[in-house]
Amino acid sequence: MEVRVSRMMTVSVLRSVGQVGVEERPVPQPAADEVLVRIGSVGVCGSDVHYYEHGRIGPYVVDSPLVLGHEAGGVVTEVGQGVTSLRVGQRVSIEPGVPCRHCPQCLAGRYNLCPEVRFFATPPYDGAFSQYVAMPASFVYPVPDSISDDAAGLLEPLSVGVWACRRAHVSPGSTVLVTGAGPIGLIAAQTARAYGADAVTVTDVNPHRLRVAEDLGLGTIDVSNTTLADSGIEADVLLECSGNARATWDAVSTMARAGRVVLVGMGGDSVNLPLSYVQDRELVVTGAFRYANTWPTAIQLAASGRVDLDGMVTGHYGLDDVEAALTASKNDPTALKVIVRPGD
Amino acid sequence: MEVRVSRMMTVSVLRSVGQVGVEERPVPQPAADEVLVRIGSVGVCGSDVHYYEHGRIGPYVVDSPLVLGHEAGGVVTEVGQGVTSLRVGQRVSIEPGVPCRHCPQCLAGRYNLCPEVRFFATPPYDGAFSQYVAMPASFVYPVPDSISDDAAGLLEPLSVGVWACRRAHVSPGSTVLVTGAGPIGLIAAQTARAYGADAVTVTDVNPHRLRVAEDLGLGTIDVSNTTLADSGIEADVLLECSGNARATWDAVSTMARAGRVVLVGMGGDSVNLPLSYVQDRELVVTGAFRYANTWPTAIQLAASGRVDLDGMVTGHYGLDDVEAALTASKNDPTALKVIVRPGD
Amino acid sequence: MEVRVSRMMTVSVLRSVGQVGVEERPVPQPAADEVLVRIGSVGVCGSDVHYYEHGRIGPYVVDSPLVLGHEAGGVVTEVGQGVTSLRVGQRVSIEPGVPCRHCPQCLAGRYNLCPEVRFFATPPYDGAFSQYVAMPASFVYPVPDSISDDAAGLLEPLSVGVWACRRAHVSPGSTVLVTGAGPIGLIAAQTARAYGADAVTVTDVNPHRLRVAEDLGLGTIDVSNTTLADSGIEADVLLECSGNARATWDAVSTMARAGRVVLVGMGGDSVNLPLSYVQDRELVVTGAFRYANTWPTAIQLAASGRVDLDGMVTGHYGLDDVEAALTASKNDPTALKVIVRPGD
Amino acid sequence: MEVRVSRMMTVSVLRSVGQVGVEERPVPQPAADEVLVRIGSVGVCGSDVHYYEHGRIGPYVVDSPLVLGHEAGGVVTEVGQGVTSLRVGQRVSIEPGVPCRHCPQCLAGRYNLCPEVRFFATPPYDGAFSQYVAMPASFVYPVPDSISDDAAGLLEPLSVGVWACRRAHVSPGSTVLVTGAGPIGLIAAQTARAYGADAVTVTDVNPHRLRVAEDLGLGTIDVSNTTLADSGIEADVLLECSGNARATWDAVSTMARAGRVVLVGMGGDSVNLPLSYVQDRELVVTGAFRYANTWPTAIQLAASGRVDLDGMVTGHYGLDDVEAALTASKNDPTALKVIVRPGD
Repeated sequence: MEVRVSRMMTVSVLRSVGQVGVEERPVPQPAADEVLVRIGSVGVCGSDVHYYEHGRIGPYVVDSPLVLGHEAGGVVTEVGQGVTSLRVGQRVSIEPGVPCRHCPQCLAGRYNLCPEVRFFATPPYDGAFSQYVAMPASFVYPVPDSISDDAAGLLEPLSVGVWACRRAHVSPGSTVLVTGAGPIGLIAAQTARAYGADAVTVTDVNPHRLRVAEDLGLGTIDVSNTTLADSGIEADVLLECSGNARATWDAVSTMARAGRVVLVGMGGDSVNLPLSYVQDRELVVTGAFRYANTWPTAIQLAASGRVDLDGMVTGHYGLDDVEAALTASKNDPTALKVIVRPGD
Repeated sequence: MEVRVSRMMTVSVLRSVGQVGVEERPVPQPAADEVLVRIGSVGVCGSDVHYYEHGRIGPYVVDSPLVLGHEAGGVVTEVGQGVTSLRVGQRVSIEPGVPCRHCPQCLAGRYNLCPEVRFFATPPYDGAFSQYVAMPASFVYPVPDSISDDAAGLLEPLSVGVWACRRAHVSPGSTVLVTGAGPIGLIAAQTARAYGADAVTVTDVNPHRLRVAEDLGLGTIDVSNTTLADSGIEADVLLECSGNARATWDAVSTMARAGRVVLVGMGGDSVNLPLSYVQDRELVVTGAFRYANTWPTAIQLAASGRVDLDGMVTGHYGLDDVEAALTASKNDPTALKVIVRPGD
Repeated sequence: MEVRVSRMMTVSVLRSVGQVGVEERPVPQPAADEVLVRIGSVGVCGSDVHYYEHGRIGPYVVDSPLVLGHEAGGVVTEVGQGVTSLRVGQRVSIEPGVPCRHCPQCLAGRYNLCPEVRFFATPPYDGAFSQYVAMPASFVYPVPDSISDDAAGLLEPLSVGVWACRRAHVSPGSTVLVTGAGPIGLIAAQTARAYGADAVTVTDVNPHRLRVAEDLGLGTIDVSNTTLADSGIEADVLLECSGNARATWDAVSTMARAGRVVLVGMGGDSVNLPLSYVQDRELVVTGAFRYANTWPTAIQLAASGRVDLDGMVTGHYGLDDVEAALTASKNDPTALKVIVRPGD
Repeated sequence: MEVRVSRMMTVSVLRSVGQVGVEERPVPQPAADEVLVRIGSVGVCGSDVHYYEHGRIGPYVVDSPLVLGHEAGGVVTEVGQGVTSLRVGQRVSIEPGVPCRHCPQCLAGRYNLCPEVRFFATPPYDGAFSQYVAMPASFVYPVPDSISDDAAGLLEPLSVGVWACRRAHVSPGSTVLVTGAGPIGLIAAQTARAYGADAVTVTDVNPHRLRVAEDLGLGTIDVSNTTLADSGIEADVLLECSGNARATWDAVSTMARAGRVVLVGMGGDSVNLPLSYVQDRELVVTGAFRYANTWPTAIQLAASGRVDLDGMVTGHYGLDDVEAALTASKNDPTALKVIVRPGD
């Protein structure tokens, strides 16, 4: 009888509000349809920060140690016996949610709405601030060399941008307004441009972020100085990435007839909208919840340089340093996207 | 030189808040592309009542005498020289808005969003509480004998129902919730059934109206007795016809994933929505502003009996009696749709 | 060590062209996510007849004994340990294709286009002319008492009709033409009516089938007597269910502008279309390959009586009599849909 | 009483097959809603050549002298009294079809399908090989300085490309195949790239045209050397711009599941399609007939340089030289798009 001795790996866990530390855990064994990925880069998302600061997001409560991180890329180090689509050594990006594949939402292609989805870093499912992760092969995508390790992880927020643009039907001819120049807003704005939008304008009150937007060739409005209404912009599409109630109201109030609004930013329990705009102009308002079937498109947009992901990165941290990564954006107004590199 | 002596006709005018009276005016001359219609029946809409009670709706202010009424049918009595689609004597229904046909909205088929539309009974354009109306032939539709005079007028609210169902993509398999059992709610619910929805449920707090809904074979919930949440209904489509903030919030909060919400009822300047439902379930929320390209469908639905319009009618009034018509629903909780008959 | 003694069951197999016989096989063991269904009724489809007569359909060749039949309903007699959605004793309808759930088509909700689908009675997968079948629970649907045993099986062709109407966007206001009054045509026409189409017309050259269509309240044209062009019909939607080249050309040539054509009938390797109609009228032509996510809708349409499936049935046969079932429509022009009942 | 003396202008007319000459005609008077445009550049289209060579296209027969040319731009020299959107001196592009604005197609936004459309250079309506043209202002679009005179005219074929991409739902992630590297194919391919398609491949047998495609950064396949099937391309979108039966069949036969085919090229009375691909892969096949609501988008694509129109131009001709313009592509395999300049 063979005794299998588990290899061990280091993970970073959130133990409770504001308490982060490292642990040793066994390296997972990939199941027949899974691959093992040695994680290279993991982007830190606002939701990771929110769990760290508040211990919960809505109904999702951190009541046992949780591995954070869901924007992950790495290298395949082992493949399950049933896997033919991947091989050891491939550089990959990970789609962090695994749906049930059996419910009506999954069967209809809306697997992002699957009520049984297992999503990285959403209690009780661990995420990717970890040296290794095992994942079903159909959610692991090879990336070309033109996509850096960091960008492999940041295909996740890019997928958010792709999904928002799809839901908003952005295309050539669209005038697009993006409220909020954080990482999601900046990525969504670039994505809108890649979808053919001629005029893409980003709003914020943070001058540094607006400068980054300008450097990316995007239009900008500093809404601490001027109002959207004064700008004269009448957008066909609003990608709301600020989660700010006032920004949302103001932006919706300037929309063109038959405009589409996608609420991407999280902003509390309710949203208040100018009813006459929604009705008289027949605006279409919807939310974007994660994404479905976006990775192949995100890979093309990043690989061709149409969306610059590396330019979003403002810092790298090791697993020992996750606390610094989680507090970076709070402590530094010029921080945009920080990366945890479990191998460093 | 021929002197043309104008024939005169009687119209009912709203002079100011609560002041209605009759006037004699010249019968209009149809232009080359117009027909003259002798009005048979005109439904009284909540907007007529609102102008009567408040003298304005949002930016539209009654500052000179206004002829109310926009749900109109009648008989063609004269045709312009360029009109080939209609002939004298035809029973017709009138689509009450005439768009500019030149702006981007018109050219895109969204003529209901034309900023230059001339719409009956919307200042400064007169409506149909009048013995005669001249109208471009392309907005006047012949109706078959199976559609009564009253129903010819009520094709207008039926068009609201058709438009709402189109925007909500109602089809077989849809579970539909209609909040508000007023005339629009009852017509929209019947329309949803004609669009193939198997389960159509109407909510209200008025027991009489709920009884009418039951008699029409619709499901009902008296939300003064029970909450929507308790009902267990998880609708794919919400046709919000109450204009009530609480009803809207409660109904949106029970929607199924990927559900569609159409805000038909008017209800103040803003609408407050449960953000997590809109986002996490990717609900699509939109308004319905009048309608476009609905009359042919509305005629089929009414002519075949799939939507019962005559059953909505609870009273008839002459032009001398418009004040009574405008106050009927206030004075009588069993009133649903009252009709002004300018020929009586 | 326990020795499991397999229970045996009878199946009907197609051994080679024109050679059908019965065999005894072990009753299958349902896997953890499967249920065992005792088959009640199985409709005979044209594809079953085609395999019987020709031993192949396109690339699918019967090179070992094949169990035919894919329109099946029955009763659950055993449930896998992981199944919570079904219980023993439930009357059910079976969706006969099991997709891989991992490929891009499956993840996009187009599981009917999955290249790895395992579909009943399509070599090398056995079908339902069998006393028992094991099937993943998520493709087995409980049916209410208002759906007969035969109709439970015939939800499969009804799903074809639902899928065709979805792809054609049938709704109130649509004028629908159905070419071919066989079982699929008659079901598709009824389905189009349930989707709200006011005018549904069926064409054929078989007077018996046209009489059945009339009895169902559908419009009919005997195209052996008159041409479609003479009928004056200008359809928005064509559901082509004849597989006949001439019928297809003639019908496409009468379509209204922006009309939609769904090619349901099988008819050889190529289809010839009048190019100027497709181009100048911007017709949209597509195929319907099986169906996806149709069963819940089909159940509602059958349970409410909006589509009459039992009226299609013209004969019942036991497993011993499958050859007679497969030759029925050839021998009897009044045969429509015959049923194999494995329990008889 | 004032006597108005008409100014005269020169036009080029097609008198009969192969007979072209110049005439003097009165400069048209713009109606109240029209502007007068002094024509700068007019692209020569294959349809102009076809009228010249055959005297007809399908049902449209040249039975009296016809002014050809419908790809036109110029400068406004006079505005009708009701026109507020344009002023004298503006450089403009002309949309060459004026629909009736009253029929169901127009009201639904499909004005390209208007049966009463008056389209340049389509008998009996004259085109733009003329010094001046009067046109309704809503079909005349100002262009920025970054669009050359020639490009102002070539916004018309660009509109064909925009319309094809819209009908095909091209977006990031789409793999696009364009059959035929003539002017329309080359413009459609560039447009597809501007719509976000990552991989756009053009096929032809003319090495010069393929070299132009390469210079534009497009993928190419010389189908005189290799077959499409060998290329391994599996396109989501086919923009068929060759009008060649074999190219069409071969390209459709390589499409990916759920692919979209837009038949742009003219190619005789019928089109033969591989039925099993259309059915089993649920391809969607449609035509593109002119365009609707495309100019604003076309202007953006040309002005931003995303589509290079000037690079298509291979020759300029005066009104005296229209015959040479119409025979240029026949005589010179390197000719792509030639321009008639009525002012030269």
